[in-house]
Amino acid sequence: MRVGVIGAGNIGTAHAVSLAREVSGSTVTAVFDVAGERAQAVAADLGARSLPSAQAVIEDESVDAVVIASPDDLHAEHALACLAAGKPMMLEKPLASTLEDAQRVMDAEVARGERLIMLGFMRRFDPGYVALKASLASGDVGEALVVHNIHRNAYAAYGLDTTLSINNSAVHEVDISRWLLDEDYAWVQVLSGKPGPDVPDGQQDPLLITFRTTSGVMVTIEMFMTARYGYEVRCSVVAGNGILDMDDGTFVTRTSQGSRGQDIPELWLGRFGEAYRAEMQAWIDGIRGLTGPAGASTWDGFMAAVSCRAAVDALNRGKAVEIDVPNRPAIYST
Amino acid sequence: MRVGVIGAGNIGTAHAVSLAREVSGSTVTAVFDVAGERAQAVAADLGARSLPSAQAVIEDESVDAVVIASPDDLHAEHALACLAAGKPMMLEKPLASTLEDAQRVMDAEVARGERLIMLGFMRRFDPGYVALKASLASGDVGEALVVHNIHRNAYAAYGLDTTLSINNSAVHEVDISRWLLDEDYAWVQVLSGKPGPDVPDGQQDPLLITFRTTSGVMVTIEMFMTARYGYEVRCSVVAGNGILDMDDGTFVTRTSQGSRGQDIPELWLGRFGEAYRAEMQAWIDGIRGLTGPAGASTWDGFMAAVSCRAAVDALNRGKAVEIDVPNRPAIYST
Amino acid sequence: MRVGVIGAGNIGTAHAVSLAREVSGSTVTAVFDVAGERAQAVAADLGARSLPSAQAVIEDESVDAVVIASPDDLHAEHALACLAAGKPMMLEKPLASTLEDAQRVMDAEVARGERLIMLGFMRRFDPGYVALKASLASGDVGEALVVHNIHRNAYAAYGLDTTLSINNSAVHEVDISRWLLDEDYAWVQVLSGKPGPDVPDGQQDPLLITFRTTSGVMVTIEMFMTARYGYEVRCSVVAGNGILDMDDGTFVTRTSQGSRGQDIPELWLGRFGEAYRAEMQAWIDGIRGLTGPAGASTWDGFMAAVSCRAAVDALNRGKAVEIDVPNRPAIYST
Amino acid sequence: MRVGVIGAGNIGTAHAVSLAREVSGSTVTAVFDVAGERAQAVAADLGARSLPSAQAVIEDESVDAVVIASPDDLHAEHALACLAAGKPMMLEKPLASTLEDAQRVMDAEVARGERLIMLGFMRRFDPGYVALKASLASGDVGEALVVHNIHRNAYAAYGLDTTLSINNSAVHEVDISRWLLDEDYAWVQVLSGKPGPDVPDGQQDPLLITFRTTSGVMVTIEMFMTARYGYEVRCSVVAGNGILDMDDGTFVTRTSQGSRGQDIPELWLGRFGEAYRAEMQAWIDGIRGLTGPAGASTWDGFMAAVSCRAAVDALNRGKAVEIDVPNRPAIYST
Repeated sequence: MRVGVIGAGNIGTAHAVSLAREVSGSTVTAVFDVAGERAQAVAADLGARSLPSAQAVIEDESVDAVVIASPDDLHAEHALACLAAGKPMMLEKPLASTLEDAQRVMDAEVARGERLIMLGFMRRFDPGYVALKASLASGDVGEALVVHNIHRNAYAAYGLDTTLSINNSAVHEVDISRWLLDEDYAWVQVLSGKPGPDVPDGQQDPLLITFRTTSGVMVTIEMFMTARYGYEVRCSVVAGNGILDMDDGTFVTRTSQGSRGQDIPELWLGRFGEAYRAEMQAWIDGIRGLTGPAGASTWDGFMAAVSCRAAVDALNRGKAVEIDVPNRPAIYST
Repeated sequence: MRVGVIGAGNIGTAHAVSLAREVSGSTVTAVFDVAGERAQAVAADLGARSLPSAQAVIEDESVDAVVIASPDDLHAEHALACLAAGKPMMLEKPLASTLEDAQRVMDAEVARGERLIMLGFMRRFDPGYVALKASLASGDVGEALVVHNIHRNAYAAYGLDTTLSINNSAVHEVDISRWLLDEDYAWVQVLSGKPGPDVPDGQQDPLLITFRTTSGVMVTIEMFMTARYGYEVRCSVVAGNGILDMDDGTFVTRTSQGSRGQDIPELWLGRFGEAYRAEMQAWIDGIRGLTGPAGASTWDGFMAAVSCRAAVDALNRGKAVEIDVPNRPAIYST
Repeated sequence: MRVGVIGAGNIGTAHAVSLAREVSGSTVTAVFDVAGERAQAVAADLGARSLPSAQAVIEDESVDAVVIASPDDLHAEHALACLAAGKPMMLEKPLASTLEDAQRVMDAEVARGERLIMLGFMRRFDPGYVALKASLASGDVGEALVVHNIHRNAYAAYGLDTTLSINNSAVHEVDISRWLLDEDYAWVQVLSGKPGPDVPDGQQDPLLITFRTTSGVMVTIEMFMTARYGYEVRCSVVAGNGILDMDDGTFVTRTSQGSRGQDIPELWLGRFGEAYRAEMQAWIDGIRGLTGPAGASTWDGFMAAVSCRAAVDALNRGKAVEIDVPNRPAIYST
Repeated sequence: MRVGVIGAGNIGTAHAVSLAREVSGSTVTAVFDVAGERAQAVAADLGARSLPSAQAVIEDESVDAVVIASPDDLHAEHALACLAAGKPMMLEKPLASTLEDAQRVMDAEVARGERLIMLGFMRRFDPGYVALKASLASGDVGEALVVHNIHRNAYAAYGLDTTLSINNSAVHEVDISRWLLDEDYAWVQVLSGKPGPDVPDGQQDPLLITFRTTSGVMVTIEMFMTARYGYEVRCSVVAGNGILDMDDGTFVTRTSQGSRGQDIPELWLGRFGEAYRAEMQAWIDGIRGLTGPAGASTWDGFMAAVSCRAAVDALNRGKAVEIDVPNRPAIYST
């Protein structure tokens, strides 16, 4: 599978290297980035060509499939172009930067009548979450009642913006809890209190976000963008017959100078590196037909957008918000 | 210090045995229980006398101090009688079964002008909570922003009653978080969702209770009375410069038949046995004058009652409730 | 029970304070130390008298029982004097500084025909070891095959001396593994290799000591006196149907600056404080007749001395040594 | 890189699937197994041809490189044939079933003057061991003094044979500790004691194997083939300034029915699946020239064989054995 990559920033480059060096059945043939030198460097390293535009990548005859890792506000435009060209794509999350754009992309895919988009919610491929879902599915602990999520970053990479904390960071929990539970959300509230020491005036961090699903499962998210100490993600499922706690699966404990402990990664790539690799392999396997469609669909991305918009509303209005779940188009029914 | 014990149920008997056998500086001289045979058995075992009434214990010349472990709705009456007799007491939590009674007891103590009551919030003496508070006080992780509490029971010993879940169980978190933070609460909400499999119609369990302190610290409590698997208490402090997580300090990990793990106690005595012992020793040391007054004061018990009533209001009204903090009488000022 | 204390160093003072302030049924009435001012300070603090000699403490009419926490090479002399006076004693480990002296003390106790000595192997009262033994005794993991011990000190308090590492430090593992297994040792070897950075020429540290019991259970001890990072004790039992691992039961995990971990105590008192308290209570309960004799007997101390001497022989001769188990006098039969 | 696979048992099939489906830059083109139907099934599944002999695979024009996963006693023959054909190979451990055959293979490779063999010590690619080595290399804990290894199997897959426990199972620790320390062994002893409940007469299990390296580092191995409860590998490095402990990096903890714990895999594939994948990728990258030679060399396999033979000698003679380290041929010098 010959892949073209749009966007050669950190995550686009990581995907390109993975597809060229770690994934079975794929090569990288074309790269575009507005920073042309960066695209050329990545292309040269991987034996690909650097092309002058996203559209050139999408249309190139040597490109069977596309990775879209452009800035969030271009996701919709690039996804629509790929849909028009009939090429399968791995579209980095979020689906779009506005709910309206998200709707447009989904409508276009539905109009085509076939699924071409895998959305980049890589946690669905993390060994930790995969084990958590399998354990829940085994029925050993019974039915889920509450899901507690913790999501902490050392610092807000693009400056702290409370809306972005929801739309760009907590969106991971929004998706993964929905995937774990196989249910949509019906209700959400957002609380905040004393801000962390690195929080500018007018912003709020940490946030305590609570969703309730259609069947009544409570999903809590502690979203802390400026936790200083490192990057950490945890998830606990409180079920009727027991509890499942997921941590970060560290192998080595170091004891020295009066304490015993594990290192925490500074950034998410240190936690989810294996998830990204597995996600790329699953995508390639899916579009090669070795498996069915893998990963998050456009519908999943759309429902994440609907849920995050409700959370932002709840934040702005200072009160809980009900969420209406739209009808799921038939192509996303399985 | 010669101690009389009112109430020889599980906890009263445990206190009596502790005072007679594990605590320095105390003996048990008198015991009363409405179940006279039980009182006689405990008294005989410890070399004490069984007396015919609570009042007889309180007034007995061989009694220097009193443990009140009677049913909740008699706490106020017995505490008032002890205050009238001028005898120091260890009063099991809650301070009273109504806020009005709690107020009456506090008023009586304030009128005397001296502190005679230590309230039985034993977690303040648990090695885990003590270490947690010390670590927070050391400043290593900075200022607390969020406190997450988990409190799970295998089953509701006296039948599941949502109000009781707050007043009798979550009250422990209400007190211990207030003690950890050295702050009162200004706001509370209570959420619930899908009930556990053992929850009768009309009751709610688990509960997600959230307090906000006067300075804005968020305090969450997952209160789950019918968790089936055992008794478990956890507390995490999310602070500006790091995180503190308290678990149950288990020593032994057993690996067999495909899993590696630790035993969970079935009941709270398995988790807090050492806390009870240390609490009794601290009480005796305090009334012997070896230390100042120890443990939770009547004010602490009153503020727990005020906070729990607000939580019950929030539960019943289905919305958040503001909490007014009354003035603290001078005798509780340190 | 009125207790006299011989030796007011760190451990003697800790015992005295514990008996006066934490233990039910005991007071401290007399203290002796060659450093008279130290004895006076401790005595004054606890409401006891400072006496001019060990013998004066032993003979004093206000002394019912004696704690011997004198230097190791005086243990035998003081124990013999207590035996002559017919007073029960808590004798700090080791039983004596030579095997010959250990034999003399045991012979004297046997000649009296009653047990007056409890030997200060406090780990038998540690909640971790107690839980480990209970779990092994429950049969859940089957029969023990191998016991792995780890014993690390930050530094050698009295200078590093390899023989002392065995006789004074590893002796704890020698006793506790024998207690866990309820078996004597038949064979021992001692290995060493690359020394730690703080080890002077001619000394060896860490040591790998291996005992084999009479039934063939292997007992390994990693004894590391200059581990720098802190004090740590671990014990694992490898059994026919599973594994038991004992660690130090820490309650609080702190996450900050890129790592998540637990504090390690610097010294053994930080790990075994509760064991010391429980040991003193058990001793007092035993001599008050509330229980039978508690803790390690003179026979246990003698067998520890026999085993350690064999280990020192094995060290010096550079090869494994067989251990002959002498006959157990009848008074130690239960 | 077109790969031929010799041996389609569990591990050969796992490698074939990995090369065809998970590894970048490889396809599987030919498969041989004495069980022809098995080879045909694997070949059909992966789009490869089934060939009638190992030699046919080695000589096939569509085969650039070979995986040798034949029975241990054929390793030497197949490796020599590959060397004769000048084709790079991934040779499952051990290098050969006798030290003499191991020597013959190494001599042949040395005679060719180039490295064509990567030996299948997959633990060198396990994220746990990689992190352990990186942490040791960082210098944070100082210089290694002792390495403790634990290696437990639920049951001996091919029947319990003490020699095989060393040559086929403990050989993993022999290699990985040598790799961690970058040092050869100079001395070894093997101890045993009470056998596990599943050990037949005349066999010994568990074993306590101790190596000492040329610089004096002690390496202990608890090798327990019939531990019943599952498959578990642990490694601890005791260093001059701290300790490193490696466990199995589990993500999910399940709490139910009175205990909290992690699942243990039943077999090694459950623990080392990711190591196998990374090993295959590294092998392909090495022979494609993207990196230098990766993984364990023939020299490493030879030194493992020398060390294991010494351990078997020590077992049979009941005493410690010195190990002479032969000269390292120049092609293995880096």
